[in-house]
Amino acid sequence: MMSADSPRSIAVVLASGGMDSCVTTAIAARDYELALLHVGYGQRTEARELAAFRGIADHYRVPAERRLEVSIEHLARIGGSSLTDMRMDVLDASEDNTGIPNTYVPFRNANMLSIGVSWAEVLGADALFIGAVEEDSSGYPDCRKVFYDAFQSVIDTGTKHERALRIVTPLIELSKADIVRAGTELGAPLHLTWSCYKREDLACGVCESCMLRLRGFRVAGIEDPIGYVNA
Amino acid sequence: MMSADSPRSIAVVLASGGMDSCVTTAIAARDYELALLHVGYGQRTEARELAAFRGIADHYRVPAERRLEVSIEHLARIGGSSLTDMRMDVLDASEDNTGIPNTYVPFRNANMLSIGVSWAEVLGADALFIGAVEEDSSGYPDCRKVFYDAFQSVIDTGTKHERALRIVTPLIELSKADIVRAGTELGAPLHLTWSCYKREDLACGVCESCMLRLRGFRVAGIEDPIGYVNA
Repeated sequence: MMSADSPRSIAVVLASGGMDSCVTTAIAARDYELALLHVGYGQRTEARELAAFRGIADHYRVPAERRLEVSIEHLARIGGSSLTDMRMDVLDASEDNTGIPNTYVPFRNANMLSIGVSWAEVLGADALFIGAVEEDSSGYPDCRKVFYDAFQSVIDTGTKHERALRIVTPLIELSKADIVRAGTELGAPLHLTWSCYKREDLACGVCESCMLRLRGFRVAGIEDPIGYVNA
Repeated sequence: MMSADSPRSIAVVLASGGMDSCVTTAIAARDYELALLHVGYGQRTEARELAAFRGIADHYRVPAERRLEVSIEHLARIGGSSLTDMRMDVLDASEDNTGIPNTYVPFRNANMLSIGVSWAEVLGADALFIGAVEEDSSGYPDCRKVFYDAFQSVIDTGTKHERALRIVTPLIELSKADIVRAGTELGAPLHLTWSCYKREDLACGVCESCMLRLRGFRVAGIEDPIGYVNA
């Protein structure tokens, strides 16, 4: 228990509803009061991810004034990604191994971080957590440490500076198995999360997101608590 | 006339409908095919600024597929600015001279730039223009050159890099009088622009935005073509 005279500072956590951001939330919850931000962008599984976000926010008893749900559907209008353009196919992990996958949403994470910084500035938060993974990931340019270092400089130069705001990427160097282990140790509600790029009822098990998740659980020797079509 | 075998490259221009972005558009139009992006954010004069944007886009004969109108009304929900929070007063220039004005919208320009980069990546644009003014301005942190230099690094590290995208801030070191002169020389349609923070019919003439604009015209010795309440 924290004593009453040492209020904890606030962290804004970007929470998609997926496993990585759920574990990131569990990590942030150890040291901060949570402010959870969900950003939908017109992706195929938006409704399912939002439901997962709400379940995770309920699990951590985040009060209404520190939950923010935002839609940036213009990213879908801008297009350029199979996650938002229904005329493009989401390729399975086995089909799509030539550089950056077609699920890449151009500059998505910068759009999300910018919203997070705006909110953090108004809340007076000290940290902005994002569950980006560089090592065991899909190769998106905006999931690399060098990108977050550059964004920190944008925050340092582009905000009011009444207090310093720090980007925290606790998973950036972890493998998916490490993430599964960390989440399990911290009691993160992984059963509430959603990762599949294609389906909203049972996870497909074959898209790159399902593949990375399943491999993580397998390597960690832990059973994935969500349901799969082909299980 | 450009010859048929030298197609010009595309520039995305952030176009609010105000004077600075109108002059920026005129500058970009000399060297690029225009793609005009308007971002509303729940500000008081949103409808009037959008009308100005459309007039300017028509003036430059920008085709429909290279116009994008986006609303990021979540900045109004996040609050923290008198431009979006109707419970706060927009202070007149004479009242508000203690540091950063209360019209500052937290991290607004990073949100706008991020949308511009997403669109530029899909369009294959080579440049992203924004009419930020550092010298003769309101002192917003996200209008300073150091902020745009930092954001350039975010673009360099966070995009696909099929082509390099450069941020261009042609007004950053200009005074408002310089901007009025440049716009006049380039034939920019300043009569179509809207700058007032408070009103949508006739400009108030007393908010900080009107004050900066009127002083620019006065110093340049040019008559402002828009109407003012107190004229």
